[in-house]
Amino acid sequence: MAGRHFLFVPGPTNVPDRVLRAMARPMVDHRSSAFPALTTGLLRDLRPVFGTTAGQPVIFAATGTGGWEVALVNACRPGDRLLAVRNGQFSHLFVDAAQRLGFDVETIDVPWGEGVPADAIEQRLRADGGAAIRAVLVVHNETATGVTSDIGAVRAAIDAAGHPALLFVDGVSSVGSIPFRFDDWRVDAAIAGSQKGLMLPPGLGIVCLSERALGAALEPGGARGFFDLRPMLQANADGYFPYTPALSLLFGLREALDMFAEEGLPNVFARHARLASGVRAAVAEWGLALCAARPELESNTVSAVVVPDGADARRVIDLAFRRYDLSLGGGLGRLAGRVFRIGHLGDVNELMLLGALAGVEMSLADAGIDVTLGSGVAAAQRLWRRSYGATDGAIESAAITAGAS
Amino acid sequence: MAGRHFLFVPGPTNVPDRVLRAMARPMVDHRSSAFPALTTGLLRDLRPVFGTTAGQPVIFAATGTGGWEVALVNACRPGDRLLAVRNGQFSHLFVDAAQRLGFDVETIDVPWGEGVPADAIEQRLRADGGAAIRAVLVVHNETATGVTSDIGAVRAAIDAAGHPALLFVDGVSSVGSIPFRFDDWRVDAAIAGSQKGLMLPPGLGIVCLSERALGAALEPGGARGFFDLRPMLQANADGYFPYTPALSLLFGLREALDMFAEEGLPNVFARHARLASGVRAAVAEWGLALCAARPELESNTVSAVVVPDGADARRVIDLAFRRYDLSLGGGLGRLAGRVFRIGHLGDVNELMLLGALAGVEMSLADAGIDVTLGSGVAAAQRLWRRSYGATDGAIESAAITAGAS
Amino acid sequence: MAGRHFLFVPGPTNVPDRVLRAMARPMVDHRSSAFPALTTGLLRDLRPVFGTTAGQPVIFAATGTGGWEVALVNACRPGDRLLAVRNGQFSHLFVDAAQRLGFDVETIDVPWGEGVPADAIEQRLRADGGAAIRAVLVVHNETATGVTSDIGAVRAAIDAAGHPALLFVDGVSSVGSIPFRFDDWRVDAAIAGSQKGLMLPPGLGIVCLSERALGAALEPGGARGFFDLRPMLQANADGYFPYTPALSLLFGLREALDMFAEEGLPNVFARHARLASGVRAAVAEWGLALCAARPELESNTVSAVVVPDGADARRVIDLAFRRYDLSLGGGLGRLAGRVFRIGHLGDVNELMLLGALAGVEMSLADAGIDVTLGSGVAAAQRLWRRSYGATDGAIESAAITAGAS
Amino acid sequence: MAGRHFLFVPGPTNVPDRVLRAMARPMVDHRSSAFPALTTGLLRDLRPVFGTTAGQPVIFAATGTGGWEVALVNACRPGDRLLAVRNGQFSHLFVDAAQRLGFDVETIDVPWGEGVPADAIEQRLRADGGAAIRAVLVVHNETATGVTSDIGAVRAAIDAAGHPALLFVDGVSSVGSIPFRFDDWRVDAAIAGSQKGLMLPPGLGIVCLSERALGAALEPGGARGFFDLRPMLQANADGYFPYTPALSLLFGLREALDMFAEEGLPNVFARHARLASGVRAAVAEWGLALCAARPELESNTVSAVVVPDGADARRVIDLAFRRYDLSLGGGLGRLAGRVFRIGHLGDVNELMLLGALAGVEMSLADAGIDVTLGSGVAAAQRLWRRSYGATDGAIESAAITAGAS
Repeated sequence: MAGRHFLFVPGPTNVPDRVLRAMARPMVDHRSSAFPALTTGLLRDLRPVFGTTAGQPVIFAATGTGGWEVALVNACRPGDRLLAVRNGQFSHLFVDAAQRLGFDVETIDVPWGEGVPADAIEQRLRADGGAAIRAVLVVHNETATGVTSDIGAVRAAIDAAGHPALLFVDGVSSVGSIPFRFDDWRVDAAIAGSQKGLMLPPGLGIVCLSERALGAALEPGGARGFFDLRPMLQANADGYFPYTPALSLLFGLREALDMFAEEGLPNVFARHARLASGVRAAVAEWGLALCAARPELESNTVSAVVVPDGADARRVIDLAFRRYDLSLGGGLGRLAGRVFRIGHLGDVNELMLLGALAGVEMSLADAGIDVTLGSGVAAAQRLWRRSYGATDGAIESAAITAGAS
Repeated sequence: MAGRHFLFVPGPTNVPDRVLRAMARPMVDHRSSAFPALTTGLLRDLRPVFGTTAGQPVIFAATGTGGWEVALVNACRPGDRLLAVRNGQFSHLFVDAAQRLGFDVETIDVPWGEGVPADAIEQRLRADGGAAIRAVLVVHNETATGVTSDIGAVRAAIDAAGHPALLFVDGVSSVGSIPFRFDDWRVDAAIAGSQKGLMLPPGLGIVCLSERALGAALEPGGARGFFDLRPMLQANADGYFPYTPALSLLFGLREALDMFAEEGLPNVFARHARLASGVRAAVAEWGLALCAARPELESNTVSAVVVPDGADARRVIDLAFRRYDLSLGGGLGRLAGRVFRIGHLGDVNELMLLGALAGVEMSLADAGIDVTLGSGVAAAQRLWRRSYGATDGAIESAAITAGAS
Repeated sequence: MAGRHFLFVPGPTNVPDRVLRAMARPMVDHRSSAFPALTTGLLRDLRPVFGTTAGQPVIFAATGTGGWEVALVNACRPGDRLLAVRNGQFSHLFVDAAQRLGFDVETIDVPWGEGVPADAIEQRLRADGGAAIRAVLVVHNETATGVTSDIGAVRAAIDAAGHPALLFVDGVSSVGSIPFRFDDWRVDAAIAGSQKGLMLPPGLGIVCLSERALGAALEPGGARGFFDLRPMLQANADGYFPYTPALSLLFGLREALDMFAEEGLPNVFARHARLASGVRAAVAEWGLALCAARPELESNTVSAVVVPDGADARRVIDLAFRRYDLSLGGGLGRLAGRVFRIGHLGDVNELMLLGALAGVEMSLADAGIDVTLGSGVAAAQRLWRRSYGATDGAIESAAITAGAS
Repeated sequence: MAGRHFLFVPGPTNVPDRVLRAMARPMVDHRSSAFPALTTGLLRDLRPVFGTTAGQPVIFAATGTGGWEVALVNACRPGDRLLAVRNGQFSHLFVDAAQRLGFDVETIDVPWGEGVPADAIEQRLRADGGAAIRAVLVVHNETATGVTSDIGAVRAAIDAAGHPALLFVDGVSSVGSIPFRFDDWRVDAAIAGSQKGLMLPPGLGIVCLSERALGAALEPGGARGFFDLRPMLQANADGYFPYTPALSLLFGLREALDMFAEEGLPNVFARHARLASGVRAAVAEWGLALCAARPELESNTVSAVVVPDGADARRVIDLAFRRYDLSLGGGLGRLAGRVFRIGHLGDVNELMLLGALAGVEMSLADAGIDVTLGSGVAAAQRLWRRSYGATDGAIESAAITAGAS
């Protein structure tokens, strides 16, 4: 197919050309005296992305799934009791991973589309007199349902219960796109992946750890191999890695962090909020519902759109892919066929999203779902126009020259 | 600005990623025994793009402007009389170049927005009893006005007049996007540039020459340096160049020609026609006029849109660029401020253009021009949906898997 | 520093430009209907690289270290007894990883520089009447010492002992460069990494598994998270991955496997053998010894060179890096300061290695080690000239043209 | 063939990876308000490369051959008498180009291998009482013979003759590698190409013009099309180009100029001098002669090596290319078969050249020319070792860590 593919799954996201170029560098010796400068700079500049000054980021050649394991096997020990909230496919898989790794996971299940219920957590922790629960596991942004939960409330709940549980937060589809306040929320392990807000290809699991989590990691015990933090922390201290790191992704991460610095993280977050508002306006205009149960839960990085009863979201997705070169996310687990998902995180802007929304409209229509072509686009346009000041100063005299081809 | 820039000037066009990658190769020795395979393949595969089996393409490190000079200084001699049609800025500049090179150019001027008047050419040639006119100069697709002329009619006019004049056709913004019939039209020199339908960065002037033009080129006379065809033809015969060719652009041209072969030239042309129809439907929906005087003149590669009286197209262009990261073409020469131009040639698809049209709508509105947001987008969507068969077979069962991030 | 860095550590190796370019592609949806073609082709074409038709390759976003874990946690269960040979730093770390993962590892230790002692393995297995030993762990090519062991002999030893132990072979620095005969040797798990003979950046752990190993993997038991083969095999069966795979590395792997097919694996192996011979001839000419105890153990992918008593190999390495932009491998573990290592695997040719050898000579001389400049280079030149036929047919008439710049 | 090609022709030179990456950027609108910053910066930063503060650089999509034409057709008029020195193939072609463009060229011919004879120029100019000679044409660095001439002496000769002739200097293979003193030498037009010391692919002709030359360019007269300076200067004044410039090469030029600034031009020149000395030491050790007639003429960018009587340099070049993946330059014009040329300009370092010299040795031996393998390499090594201080301070404690693959 001619032209550019429109990639609007909620990960992998669109990798900026300059990140791709930064990655296309020849290899270097990861044990040379010149190497630590790279490592040190990356670990330093990851901190603000997690909203931390005291937390310690580590970078593994893995994915977010591997990041979960980093947190679990280092800060906990097999058999430990964990309290986890399940409100979507990724929180479900987080629980599943913990169980397969030998943890005793107690779950709080809420309908998919709901957020993390801080009150239920508080209640359960209050009941845990002996503090048997070692850690609380929640997902900041449920990629499967497009729901962002209030982690500050979770922290407040733990505090209110006076419980010493560690707090593990999956930030795979929020870190870098939605404000993450590691320090404010006193998170103990935050898990991110390279392929979402960090604008990189998949291949890195990035975890930020609190002092408490690090302390637990240094204690003996547990079966820890590749994800053992001890050799990693020891090597990182000198700017090295215990084994060959995924160099090209590190080169790309350097560039992505520079881009964050150039745009300014607050602006990155504001852009995601503005773009998400437009997408939601389009969905509303189409007369479709979001999977998120309430407006305050709606995610700024991914919108899960529910198709009308009788329709199959998989058909919409398939038509979009084959006819219009547009990739949309599918419904996962119990949502298969019920929702399609529009990823609007990472390196995206208004016109890219308007093209994608236009493609969604055509795919919906092709799938026999009643939608007015152009209607969602117009709703987003109205919002995105309004998001600029009515006047943005005198327009400079247009620099237009006439000339030959 | 985050995300991808929307480049919709009528050149340079969007260079496909795979062409950029093909260009990012280390240099090679252009005098090695391995080099001729590249040259020979390029010259062979350029032929179908010009619609010729007998014509001889040559490739210069230059631009389309340099391509004009290749035709003029080799097939004509200083002082020769040329007959040129002026119907836009590029035909104006073609005349200007010929004059500065010392030719005696007689012009047929028509209003900008008109096509090449075959009847006027015939009339003038009939009056040239002594056949003093050496060549007829026309522009196939006027990039400034978005007008495609009927070159077959020009050939018929020359034949009807029984005149031996050579026929020079500027195909800079048509070759590779709109059918060009070098052999059918018996063109003597067709001029293309790399940065339009050929999907490359600027830097190559590509000219296709007839046997007659080549014969004239081999005759002595005239002041010919860099653009002298004699050393070029001699070196090309063995697969070499008389001086170091623009290697990275040749690598890119190899890839671009492979892409043409993969998509199929008829499909490339059909895609351009379909995309152009959608853009024109949008313009009509906005209530705006095209610069092209009549529908049959409307170009499939560029649409020049006239803004309402009192509005300044430069302001639309400036707002699009600064607010929405969208590049539109400006009005050239006497059209400055009166038109903006949307390029829809090269490596473009529906969603890219829908994003661009949405951006144009916001820019028009921002500039105070009355337009219904989403209206042009919807008009294009209706057309592009219709352009697919009502049914395109059973949709394969969607390949959707559930999994973790 | 100007010019190209000379990277001659034994990994990461030089990534070919075309692999870097292949990796610099935009992301795709790993759950689209178009994706399985990539996965399926990779898994198919990895087989010959391992020398197998029946083995099952799997690809993890990890490194070779992660690959060890894939083999261990899936084919064995915590507490299983393993028999491992230690003859260098990487076999040492293999043991260490197994121990940290909770296995009961019995070791056969031989001096570093020695190969895997098949007779000692046979003896030990014969003594294991109850077949308590679940698996034998060996390293095919010890990267730390430049020693290649005879895995066929290990298989014969296991067979001679009539022992049912699984055979795990670390092929990180051999697979793709030295013949690996998975089927002939009846290996149960072979571990490779992307950053050595496969000519890719680090970031993939690739493991090939026998039917027996796969059968064990499907049995319940053990704490398996990220490296659990069950979801991987299930998803791979349809061409998908259970979580987002490291796409850019997969794109690169596709290209690397195509390069293997173009050169022909036997030619790849022969090239490595020829290049290694030249390096060894240079070392001999310098009057230095290899770490490998005997010629038949000398590796075709890495040469560990012992510096004279009193000299510090770290100084040689440091001078090479800072003065001559040459990266050499250091001595690992107990060999620190005693050896420097020259990697000669992956995408290397004669002139690259001659430049590197010349750089080693200057660094040795700068470090005060007595060496005749040019001597090692000449030794390699003599060998590499000889490696061509005395006559290779009539030389085509040189294609040399005169021309301007 | 595996591994990296060794490109040691004197142009195109090795393009640094970072320049290739900088070029692999998407296109931009060359008429946008953001574009002038690029143009202005390039023109500013080219000045020091030419050694000028007052000269005016211009950039054409062309080659050095086109650059000659820029100087000739703008600063002179057809029929003008020019005085040109011919001492090699490129000065020969410079004369040829001038003649084909209609100039009356008087030549001073000296043996190839000689430099520009300032005394002969002075003598001829003194005899030109009526100052009929409009310009003197010389080549700073004859790429065909590896001869660098003393342009300061040429300037002194013109001054001594009290002659008003313009001074045109071809600096194609010197600018950016050998000090060029545009202001000191009062050059009127200096011509460079992108593909030599500027480390770019071919495709740009870059010319630096004096105030006098610019004044002449603005006068009417002559047949000037593509290379007409008037529209170029007018558009450049605002940061634009009169036609679409070769954008990717401009992006690359930006990066190359940044690299010059990072290394420092004096260091760039010193590096070329040091590398050239080593190559010459190798040639001397081989017992072969350079084409340059005297040591003070020997070029720091290219060495033309004369093969013994009876040998054919083309065979050496062909063997190098086919057997060792090494590109050497051929003898041009009357030197065909007599010399091979080693380019040592642009982005080169010691180890790259040592690999190339080793390849030359093997090719010479293969061609039956008596040479001691390793001898030239050793000669260069001795020189390049010496070129560093005997002591360069304490070597930092080597940063070497032990770890797993």
